[in-house]
Amino acid sequence: MLRIPFAEIASTLTAILVGIGFERERAEHCARLFAETTRDGIYSHGIERFPRFLETIRNGTVDIHAAPECIQQLGAIERWDGRRGPGNLNAWSSMARAIELSREHGIGCVALANTNHWMRGGTYGWQVADTGFIGVCWTNTLANLPPWGASAPALGNNPLIVAVPRPAGHVVLDMAMSQFSYGALATYQQKGRLLPVDGGFDTAGNLTRDPAAIEASQRPLPIGYWKGSGLAMMLDTVAALLSGGLATHQIPIEPVKETSLSQVFLAFNLARLQPSEDSVRTADAIVDSVLAGNPGAVRYPGQQVLQTRAENLALGLPVREELWIDLRRL
Amino acid sequence: MLRIPFAEIASTLTAILVGIGFERERAEHCARLFAETTRDGIYSHGIERFPRFLETIRNGTVDIHAAPECIQQLGAIERWDGRRGPGNLNAWSSMARAIELSREHGIGCVALANTNHWMRGGTYGWQVADTGFIGVCWTNTLANLPPWGASAPALGNNPLIVAVPRPAGHVVLDMAMSQFSYGALATYQQKGRLLPVDGGFDTAGNLTRDPAAIEASQRPLPIGYWKGSGLAMMLDTVAALLSGGLATHQIPIEPVKETSLSQVFLAFNLARLQPSEDSVRTADAIVDSVLAGNPGAVRYPGQQVLQTRAENLALGLPVREELWIDLRRL
Repeated sequence: MLRIPFAEIASTLTAILVGIGFERERAEHCARLFAETTRDGIYSHGIERFPRFLETIRNGTVDIHAAPECIQQLGAIERWDGRRGPGNLNAWSSMARAIELSREHGIGCVALANTNHWMRGGTYGWQVADTGFIGVCWTNTLANLPPWGASAPALGNNPLIVAVPRPAGHVVLDMAMSQFSYGALATYQQKGRLLPVDGGFDTAGNLTRDPAAIEASQRPLPIGYWKGSGLAMMLDTVAALLSGGLATHQIPIEPVKETSLSQVFLAFNLARLQPSEDSVRTADAIVDSVLAGNPGAVRYPGQQVLQTRAENLALGLPVREELWIDLRRL
Repeated sequence: MLRIPFAEIASTLTAILVGIGFERERAEHCARLFAETTRDGIYSHGIERFPRFLETIRNGTVDIHAAPECIQQLGAIERWDGRRGPGNLNAWSSMARAIELSREHGIGCVALANTNHWMRGGTYGWQVADTGFIGVCWTNTLANLPPWGASAPALGNNPLIVAVPRPAGHVVLDMAMSQFSYGALATYQQKGRLLPVDGGFDTAGNLTRDPAAIEASQRPLPIGYWKGSGLAMMLDTVAALLSGGLATHQIPIEPVKETSLSQVFLAFNLARLQPSEDSVRTADAIVDSVLAGNPGAVRYPGQQVLQTRAENLALGLPVREELWIDLRRL
């Protein structure tokens, strides 16, 4: 594993994007989001994912020139068409617009149809928390999760992000509705390890901690069994209804073709609801109460990110050597 | 088990509430919500819970004359003080206000502080779906759930409701962040049955399906282990920050004293976002896609309610004989 400075990664990715026709400013933004994801330790969706992102541009899934267009304004909620632009840029500008709406209305909502994979969902949680606002967002996905009681995928794992600003470290939850992503299953499998808890069914229909058995059955487990199954369905339904876009069952199934996703972005203008010292006190006290007596054993959502971020900025971001060689060749 | 007509239950409860000083209209509404909860099959929070509700009035937890007061208006989001009024009436009027705000702004949010147990959270999901709007609401609770990695409760199970309107049957998710409620554990224990999946830890710290062992350890499991633990924390934090009310760690622990809760109510004006036939088609298609090939084995959230409702309205609502005798004596 190499350790490459953040700026070098960002400029390398920017150059690649400019080379395939991105406008410079959009290339810099898109590259920065990929680099920041690796910086924060979400390696599966950072630079490691970049070659697959390029592939979606080449095969026409992602239109690099498309920016979201406002379709309908209804006061504090708006519908936007993502026009199949780059998913991370679309999501960023949607959350930015929700924040803007919340400045005016106290709360703002953007429902985005026809977009592409937003990569790391937590990005938009950190984005809204950095403004001092509370944010919630989620996306639907292709069908990759069997509903509770079924054996074939009919739900997306539909990541949900909830973010609360806090000077001592934002509290940012970024969670998919499956207990383990396929990426996580692959990681356990490579290391020859069992999952810490049941992660799905084997082909015989028994709950198992064996990642290979779950890969084989394609039956990962929703969080909380029937509960996560229900929540995944609701997130998909609300996203499709508010945005007017596609629902999971309509989204093309081949991974590289996962497109025309529906997403929802909510921002709450915390700054105008109460003095910020009150908000800080409340958030700090909640974090303290949850960690109380169990430092180390209990973590709050997002806690790990700042530590990883500091380490990676100090040492350079970890990048697989083969990947880096490949990217430098592009 | 007796079978009592809905109207007889509602009028009996109304008379009791009027007898202890409720205004008639509020008594009728409060009684109706309890009766409807039993009607819909959520027996733990319907008429079965009514004696405990009366106890919270007697011991001063609930002020029967208090109605919520608007503290702050910020366009599409408002802060209300529940003034420790009856939790179900407070929650109902908060969702009604969120709906009203969404008529004007496309989306509406009410953050309610200082309220009491809202009884069945799904009530406010059915309420918003009945108007044709999408709704989301949640409450915090006293600490009844250990964070992942800890053995003592520091999180609430913070029920979350998401509701989507649909003429063929609203899709309404009503789920707490614990895998099983203490009520559900007690029911399994009474029947001498094991839980269908792990529901918590025993006193030795092992995951178990034995409800008695979980009662003994007071360590129920969050849905999805670390994931539900994180989501429970976020729901509490957002509710406390938006409402300016108490967080779980500040809420009195004795069950009968659980008070000064914080809640959030969101309504989305679906009717103005798209023609209702489009919404109906989308929601129906999603439901069909999730149930496809597995009728009976897979259910959508809320599916069971309408069937139970019809049965109970036809046969009379099931009520324990001792409970009914007690209530008739009041």
